[in-house]
Amino acid sequence: MTTEPQVPGVVVERLPQYLRALSHLQEIGLEVISSQQLGEFLQATPAQIRKDLSYFGRFGKQGRGYSIPNLLLQLRRILGLDQTWNVAVVGVGRLGRSIISYPGFEPEGFRVVCAFDSNSQVIGQMAGGLLVNDFANFREVADAEGVKIAIVAVPAGVAQDVIDQLVEAGVKAILNYAPKSTIVPNGVRIQNVDPVVSLQSMTYYLNPHANGEVGEAEA
Amino acid sequence: MTTEPQVPGVVVERLPQYLRALSHLQEIGLEVISSQQLGEFLQATPAQIRKDLSYFGRFGKQGRGYSIPNLLLQLRRILGLDQTWNVAVVGVGRLGRSIISYPGFEPEGFRVVCAFDSNSQVIGQMAGGLLVNDFANFREVADAEGVKIAIVAVPAGVAQDVIDQLVEAGVKAILNYAPKSTIVPNGVRIQNVDPVVSLQSMTYYLNPHANGEVGEAEA
Repeated sequence: MTTEPQVPGVVVERLPQYLRALSHLQEIGLEVISSQQLGEFLQATPAQIRKDLSYFGRFGKQGRGYSIPNLLLQLRRILGLDQTWNVAVVGVGRLGRSIISYPGFEPEGFRVVCAFDSNSQVIGQMAGGLLVNDFANFREVADAEGVKIAIVAVPAGVAQDVIDQLVEAGVKAILNYAPKSTIVPNGVRIQNVDPVVSLQSMTYYLNPHANGEVGEAEA
Repeated sequence: MTTEPQVPGVVVERLPQYLRALSHLQEIGLEVISSQQLGEFLQATPAQIRKDLSYFGRFGKQGRGYSIPNLLLQLRRILGLDQTWNVAVVGVGRLGRSIISYPGFEPEGFRVVCAFDSNSQVIGQMAGGLLVNDFANFREVADAEGVKIAIVAVPAGVAQDVIDQLVEAGVKAILNYAPKSTIVPNGVRIQNVDPVVSLQSMTYYLNPHANGEVGEAEA
């Protein structure tokens, strides 16, 4: 039994990947896995995996490996995924509508319960079974719905302003689809969904120079 | 001068993050940075950064740090970002339309040049300035447009089938928005855009148990 006052952010960000991998391994019938095997699956060193998990307690016995069902259960608890989270979507354009209708959230415990826009042409319409609320009423509606997580799908130009208002209304976690770097105060988490970063790591392999020389690099 | 026959995938995936960080540091006026400083910015150890970059040549001199403009130039070249990539979008529903209109691709050298759907109600329509082609004609249109990268925004149920057809038509890199794990053969790259993973790493911080005990964990 341990407490973990300061787990590095990068470690926390790896936990969902462990969760995804372990769920997959469980689906294909495995019950126990070594840090070596899990490392091979995740392209990480066994030492890295043992170190990451050690922040949260002792999950395996030397030479025996991890019980997959137990590790899944513990990771879900650590990540707060043993409960359902109510989520607000802000910005009901094409992207916002597709987020509201995204079928991947609900099975993982995230429920989109309210939607907001500031365009009077959109407010009062239905989107994926939800009434679109006026963003001016965000705090009141979000409080009533117990929302602490917001997904932002507004144009880049207004993203920071919208995010500032969400923070002021008590939102603690933001998933930002706007193609722009934004700032939040300490105590609020933000993650950017950035398809460009994903594309950029694939073009490496398409690049005819990929395996060639790099050229002189000066200091 | 070095060649790099086998750079680990995780290293390649970190390069766009280095690129993003260095661009930001250049924007705020920095010209030189140490691996120590870059590590602090990226929450990685200086040793990790030096090791990652060492796969591609020598970019800095001991004690002198990296020249930011030079490192940016080299990373762009390594990642194949010194050219424009033509991209196809497959699936022109709400999500597909919002991807076609996404303003973040073009400034980074990715141009959406053609769109496809298999729904006869959608084929022949315009979406974000592009004519929607019949997916049955993918190979012919993609060849004519020089497309090697496809973005998949189809329902989960047909994702694997669509991806198989893309691979057969010669697509080498796929950005998959469908909420489903899919399989591609060796030599083809795939990245999944998965908002759930991002949400899961934030709920950790919202979780009242986050800093509490983890409980007994059996082996």
